[in-house]
Amino acid sequence: MKITKPGQKMAEGKTKVVYATEDPNLLWLHSKDQVTALNGKKHDDFANKGALANQISTLLFQYLNDQGFQTHFVEQINATDDVVQKLTMLPVEVVVRNRAAGHFVIRFGVENLQPLNPPVQEFYYKSDQQDDPMINPSQLEALQIATPEESQAMEAQARALTKALTNLFAQSGMQLVDIKYEFGRNQQGELILGDELSPDNMRIIDQATGQSLDKDVYRHDNGDLQHGYQTVLDRLRAQLGEA
Amino acid sequence: MKITKPGQKMAEGKTKVVYATEDPNLLWLHSKDQVTALNGKKHDDFANKGALANQISTLLFQYLNDQGFQTHFVEQINATDDVVQKLTMLPVEVVVRNRAAGHFVIRFGVENLQPLNPPVQEFYYKSDQQDDPMINPSQLEALQIATPEESQAMEAQARALTKALTNLFAQSGMQLVDIKYEFGRNQQGELILGDELSPDNMRIIDQATGQSLDKDVYRHDNGDLQHGYQTVLDRLRAQLGEA
Repeated sequence: MKITKPGQKMAEGKTKVVYATEDPNLLWLHSKDQVTALNGKKHDDFANKGALANQISTLLFQYLNDQGFQTHFVEQINATDDVVQKLTMLPVEVVVRNRAAGHFVIRFGVENLQPLNPPVQEFYYKSDQQDDPMINPSQLEALQIATPEESQAMEAQARALTKALTNLFAQSGMQLVDIKYEFGRNQQGELILGDELSPDNMRIIDQATGQSLDKDVYRHDNGDLQHGYQTVLDRLRAQLGEA
Repeated sequence: MKITKPGQKMAEGKTKVVYATEDPNLLWLHSKDQVTALNGKKHDDFANKGALANQISTLLFQYLNDQGFQTHFVEQINATDDVVQKLTMLPVEVVVRNRAAGHFVIRFGVENLQPLNPPVQEFYYKSDQQDDPMINPSQLEALQIATPEESQAMEAQARALTKALTNLFAQSGMQLVDIKYEFGRNQQGELILGDELSPDNMRIIDQATGQSLDKDVYRHDNGDLQHGYQTVLDRLRAQLGEA
């Protein structure tokens, strides 16, 4: 069934609106122009931000699908809208860090951008009320959020995904500092990658200049968000051979 | 070589003084009457507290040695003083929780004393400057604090130790809520249990009355610390058949 229009609005988050479609296994995702930080305490609209973030996410999901990874991505409708598999999301963020930044620097008092070998992997419990605390597999099990097998599968997938994306960014003159993933179960009960993959959810620096090309410029008010996102999109398009 | 007196003072912590002995592989530990909370921000002296805590710790270490666990404990000198193997301690606290309490309740917003099945296991990085943050094995590896094998060994030992101690406390009419361990390497390079095992480092409740028998009464100013520690000591002595 070819999906041509969104159905009923199911949910609206900080940066996205989720609609049903005629196919009960598919959802229609629309990216908004809002950008948020500090768990939503800071938020602003930037013209074209939804289109930039979504086009980057689409390219990365297409790339991962092509590389044989299972993801929720089905097809792009236009710059801001995609059709994806409906997943039952786990309330867990899976972070992989090639270098120290953000929370990691604050938590452990290490130098910003210190290389982490091997890359660090972390789980966070998605809970606005609890301020998204770090959580470990034994806590995930006891709180009945994820089984040990699910935690292991998420960690393994996150590490493999990060390897693939780190290489892709390196080939495009960019360094992937860290990245956040979210996983969910599809109709077949498989745990696969959902959510989005944009500079909202990862830190990327220009390999030549060291310039930040992600949401950090918004978090710290020290750069041009649209310019960074446009740079990422242009470079990925050039690397992946799309016009 | 029989150790009969402490040698040079090596270190003094919040609750203990460490002395060298004539044997380079052995240390003399003296327990002080100080009790601390909030990473040392709150501290007071209680008469007899060092003797109570140390006598409980001695009984528990003797019990674990008898059960075939490897620990640093060698022999008791008197109520406040023990001789132990010299270990190179890892700056890591290993926590096992049978029930939710303290940090766990705050972090995840669950009910106090909610049972955790299976018991939760956590690592904390011992760093006063960073306020002892929770840490996971991948972070321990990247920060070169512990190898994945060391983390695995500490978790396995902590779980087995907790099973043994939970049973011992249950037989003595007490419930072990949670407990903290610290491990170090001995001269042979073996990773074994060090530090102390007293109500300073675990939560224990009276099975009949639900009364707190540990340092929580000091943390929350809601009970008699000496009475709780004396109760724990008396019950363990009765259970273990010592006068």
